[in-house]
Amino acid sequence: MSGSLTIAGLGPGDAALVTPEVSAALNEATDVLGYAPYVARVPPREGLRLHPSDNRMELARAGEALRLAADGRSVVLVSSGDPGVFAMAAAVFEALETAPQWRDVAIRVLPGVTAMLAAAARAGAPLGHDFCAINLSDNLKPWPTIEKRLRLAAEADFAIALYNPRSASRPEGFGRALDILRDAGCGERLVIFAHAVTTPKERIETVRLDDARPEMADMATLVIVGNSATRQIGRWVYAPRRAS
Amino acid sequence: MSGSLTIAGLGPGDAALVTPEVSAALNEATDVLGYAPYVARVPPREGLRLHPSDNRMELARAGEALRLAADGRSVVLVSSGDPGVFAMAAAVFEALETAPQWRDVAIRVLPGVTAMLAAAARAGAPLGHDFCAINLSDNLKPWPTIEKRLRLAAEADFAIALYNPRSASRPEGFGRALDILRDAGCGERLVIFAHAVTTPKERIETVRLDDARPEMADMATLVIVGNSATRQIGRWVYAPRRAS
Repeated sequence: MSGSLTIAGLGPGDAALVTPEVSAALNEATDVLGYAPYVARVPPREGLRLHPSDNRMELARAGEALRLAADGRSVVLVSSGDPGVFAMAAAVFEALETAPQWRDVAIRVLPGVTAMLAAAARAGAPLGHDFCAINLSDNLKPWPTIEKRLRLAAEADFAIALYNPRSASRPEGFGRALDILRDAGCGERLVIFAHAVTTPKERIETVRLDDARPEMADMATLVIVGNSATRQIGRWVYAPRRAS
Repeated sequence: MSGSLTIAGLGPGDAALVTPEVSAALNEATDVLGYAPYVARVPPREGLRLHPSDNRMELARAGEALRLAADGRSVVLVSSGDPGVFAMAAAVFEALETAPQWRDVAIRVLPGVTAMLAAAARAGAPLGHDFCAINLSDNLKPWPTIEKRLRLAAEADFAIALYNPRSASRPEGFGRALDILRDAGCGERLVIFAHAVTTPKERIETVRLDDARPEMADMATLVIVGNSATRQIGRWVYAPRRAS
């Protein structure tokens, strides 16, 4: 029997944001792999093997998914949000590059609603104009690269979505990121803290960057820094489509 | 009866990428408004009024949607992809700002799979590292702003998703964008042309930027310019998670 590997995005949390394409893939799977909290979102059923794993095990997990698929299993590797945005798809292709024996495995990538889109929708339309997405985790890139990108993003007047702003192992990075943006003249910009978006624990908070404090974010928070024209109307925050 | 306005994203084209949340909103709607090709994707049923409109009518359409909702209708305003990314959500908040009489209308924004995520999934994982999204349409912003952002995005080594690369009314902009990126030293980068992604007319093409020609894109094309580390493995294109 010929196996396959589907790399699927579960969306930000709410089951109503899982695409029918992903639901169909999960219904046909023999094995589901992923970081344990994401695997826990997959409805169990008879004949479906669940393989939860720890965080930071991305390459090992990708290799295991490829091995199972090569053995003839119908494997779905799940990510939160979209699998192509700071998630498992890149890890699979990295694993594939080091393991030529798996080059013939049939692979599909199924997109999902990534956190910044769900956060933006809850807040209004802060990504309605040009924007960028920066992963603040420095596990895989040096901090000076992050600083440089923040400065250039501010100069370009992008709205800035910040993924993984803060964790216990590197609590200081996000505060430094806020300082860099203040130094770049962004103190008056609006900042949206979207915590656990689309889940029962959702909390959305909007402040001026000058009033933003590092502890407003944790690893379940997606932060969006507005561009210089981003404005509030009632409870909504949006980027006007027109720019000068 | 109290009306409502739901601003919903239909995803890139395939019905299997419409979220259950959006499908439920369409099932409960009395009126659906949007650009005609997007309204045509909504299944008709008795009691549902469809209001297709022309392109570039965004503000008028947003005002009409707010007016119908204020009149007690259950209105869904549809965009392709995600409504918050270069689409109708920002137009609604702009309309709201000029029309205080509609401030009490109940509004929801429902996210969707935006074109760059679907294009990236088909190609592999070119957005697996930091990236930006730039709308190349200069209807609403001056061309020098676009040029500046392209230069800064190249300097930041972002992958770059280019929306609306080309139209009949401004055929030259995309060629200039490619020239700017070549001048910025990006000639060796991989460029993905994703045409009509997830539809029967889908066509994905990957070339080096030095070999990219403006006519490879039209308005149904989403272009992703890889970062300096983006690589090919077999038919897949991906951005390694690690950066220097």
